[in-house]
Amino acid sequence: MAEEKLPTRAQDFSEWYNQLVLKAQLADYAPVRGCMIVRPYGWALWENIQGALDRRFKATGHQNVAFPLLIPKSFIEKEKHHVEGFSPELAVVTIGGGEELAEPLILRPTSETIIGHMWSKWIQSYRDLPVLMNQWNSVVRWELRTKLFLRTLEFYWQEGHTAHATQQEAEDSIEAMMGDGKALQAGTSHFLGQNFAQAFEVKYLDQTGVQQHCWTTSWGLSTRFIGAIIMVHGDDQGLVLPPKLAPYQVVIVPIFKNDEEKASVLAVAKDIKAQLVKANIRVTLDEREGQSPGWKFNDWEMRGVPLRVELGPKDVAKQSAVLARRDRPGKEGKVFASMADLPATVEKLLAEIQDSLYAKALAFRRSNTHNAQTYDELKKAVENGFAFSGWCGSGDCEGKIKEETRATMRCIPLDQEAVLGSGGGAASGKCVYCAQPAKSRAIFARAY
Amino acid sequence: MAEEKLPTRAQDFSEWYNQLVLKAQLADYAPVRGCMIVRPYGWALWENIQGALDRRFKATGHQNVAFPLLIPKSFIEKEKHHVEGFSPELAVVTIGGGEELAEPLILRPTSETIIGHMWSKWIQSYRDLPVLMNQWNSVVRWELRTKLFLRTLEFYWQEGHTAHATQQEAEDSIEAMMGDGKALQAGTSHFLGQNFAQAFEVKYLDQTGVQQHCWTTSWGLSTRFIGAIIMVHGDDQGLVLPPKLAPYQVVIVPIFKNDEEKASVLAVAKDIKAQLVKANIRVTLDEREGQSPGWKFNDWEMRGVPLRVELGPKDVAKQSAVLARRDRPGKEGKVFASMADLPATVEKLLAEIQDSLYAKALAFRRSNTHNAQTYDELKKAVENGFAFSGWCGSGDCEGKIKEETRATMRCIPLDQEAVLGSGGGAASGKCVYCAQPAKSRAIFARAY
Repeated sequence: MAEEKLPTRAQDFSEWYNQLVLKAQLADYAPVRGCMIVRPYGWALWENIQGALDRRFKATGHQNVAFPLLIPKSFIEKEKHHVEGFSPELAVVTIGGGEELAEPLILRPTSETIIGHMWSKWIQSYRDLPVLMNQWNSVVRWELRTKLFLRTLEFYWQEGHTAHATQQEAEDSIEAMMGDGKALQAGTSHFLGQNFAQAFEVKYLDQTGVQQHCWTTSWGLSTRFIGAIIMVHGDDQGLVLPPKLAPYQVVIVPIFKNDEEKASVLAVAKDIKAQLVKANIRVTLDEREGQSPGWKFNDWEMRGVPLRVELGPKDVAKQSAVLARRDRPGKEGKVFASMADLPATVEKLLAEIQDSLYAKALAFRRSNTHNAQTYDELKKAVENGFAFSGWCGSGDCEGKIKEETRATMRCIPLDQEAVLGSGGGAASGKCVYCAQPAKSRAIFARAY
Repeated sequence: MAEEKLPTRAQDFSEWYNQLVLKAQLADYAPVRGCMIVRPYGWALWENIQGALDRRFKATGHQNVAFPLLIPKSFIEKEKHHVEGFSPELAVVTIGGGEELAEPLILRPTSETIIGHMWSKWIQSYRDLPVLMNQWNSVVRWELRTKLFLRTLEFYWQEGHTAHATQQEAEDSIEAMMGDGKALQAGTSHFLGQNFAQAFEVKYLDQTGVQQHCWTTSWGLSTRFIGAIIMVHGDDQGLVLPPKLAPYQVVIVPIFKNDEEKASVLAVAKDIKAQLVKANIRVTLDEREGQSPGWKFNDWEMRGVPLRVELGPKDVAKQSAVLARRDRPGKEGKVFASMADLPATVEKLLAEIQDSLYAKALAFRRSNTHNAQTYDELKKAVENGFAFSGWCGSGDCEGKIKEETRATMRCIPLDQEAVLGSGGGAASGKCVYCAQPAKSRAIFARAY
């Protein structure tokens, strides 16, 4: 497979993306339009993302939970914004066990409604708050234009849901979660105010014995994040995976010409693998028969493994190995390491690669995010990048901007200073659309 | 909540079960009939089960994957046994994005069909085999009589699917997975022969260049296992959870009468908690206000925490604590431990509790499994237990037994000797129904 070359990103970015996802065996098209199969390599990447987030969620007191897939259709209609947002995208179950259902059921597009329904039963007193919940599941939204990972009918995600006694606490919660969460910048978060609590009667008795509505939030990060990793870090050779998330952090490729060399090289390769496993490094040894080392180099380069160990008879004789960095192709990225301190060298290089990819991505994002103070500047910025502009906070302005430029409000960055870095220019202080005082600066962009 | 007493198991086993699941906050009823919400305490239990199994699956070379929820209805009809088994239980999506679908989609009741479909594309050569896959997901089966965890419309499970070049290898696979997997005895496994491979054209080119059909297996363990844990280990006070799976292995209950005592007791309690966390023990400190220590003892007993640490001012003064075993209520289960070696004492006790629960469950199962050599003995055995009987292997005999006794064939234990233990009696060597030579002995029982 790897022998058929990918188109370059400059030739056709969209085709480069599609072909890469298939060739790297991250995912494949399912028989149902718009659905995907996440293959082992893609799922291992997702499990690493899950692991990193899940530890963080638990450390901040969130508990995992599982709400069901099937939701009564009437639930969706209880909250105004919700019904407007999701009605056109619903998948509806009308038959169960061979019989037409009295009330149709929808496949969850998200779980606010059913969670609100249950919270109204579980939450009674201020002692029950805050409620901090998260669930890992899949949701279904009937999208028309789909693309593997970026937009699929069914996608995997985590949805966090919290309920609080006060508005302040609800806002702090979100901030604590998103604060320094680099990964979470790719997710979404919503401060839902008391809208859902009112629609579903989520109330608590406060310390003075008065019934109050809760303040709720929700936030999520989906398999779309994998699409972002592919696009942000990939190059014309294929994937470039950050070491912290890569299914394999290291691949060992043995090089030999005859059975004698094969025996001695493979023995050392297996020993190296065992040493790296012991150091908690995710490593694979490519023992595939019938493929040349060069073919294997290309194949693993395409699949984005951060570090390659090349091991031939000469290396074995010299008690050393060649390490090749995926993020620096060619000679520049080659390191000669002695066998004795291989695990330490590998650990050091993986940390360097991780930092270097992060710095590169940040610089890229900053260079594509424009300090758009006027509406004309915004229009120009969203042609091929992001506009960072003052916004009065009104849905009206947001709607007009979308209507006129096809750019939607993506997020209000919590750390406003960090968006453009130092030297990024000052805020105008006015809403880019209506020129009223800005509440904050927001990112506007067209959807991919 | 804990103050309302459960019915005893002797009074009403079914009500004891239902009330316990709700009171212990393992799960709750969803607004859709037959669906459940797995609450944080229940989901933490499931995550511990998942963790233990997932490590085992990965160690034996299985890779996790995610096949989609939605399957074309026509897929189900491609394999005869499959369509017979699942047709009456399907949930059908007929509307998507506001429009009637050209082909209805079903919510997966299991994934053999879609996996077969994709394998026919991915598997080409003997070099691609074996394929060892697993996925953690939920499936939907339109059950009429439901009970939390034991039978729900949507349930959580793992489904393992493997494809092999030869029948022998397929059978060895299953055996290796199930061999000493104590937990997996609660699961199901199927040797599917070449049925699915033929229905979905899953073929490979063998070493001599000839096209062959693959041999496939599937196996799974579901949240039903949680129901089994509740029933097998629970007592009239509530849950008794095995330490390896318990969300909290230890609960610390502080005892004090005034603020001064509270300060000194809580300081030591927090220190104990930190020590246990450091020793990788899952521990919680019950700091709830407004509840007496006695109420807390009952509450955590009902929720099945294996070990309770009771800590009052006298214990603090003596630099010791009282440890109470959940599996041995009353004085017999109390141990006085010095503070200095508390983590070591706790670890030792948890291991003892784990072994003791396993031995008790095994003895219970053996005492309820009867060596039924004749059909009359089988009929009597399934009245309130399991029959272990010779079976010729034919579906006809299995069907007749089900029709006449309502008992179904549950499994063919791989370790036939271990079922009844030593002194369990010899096999008759004949099928309990038709008296033809038995292929093996199987367990027959009525479904709960």
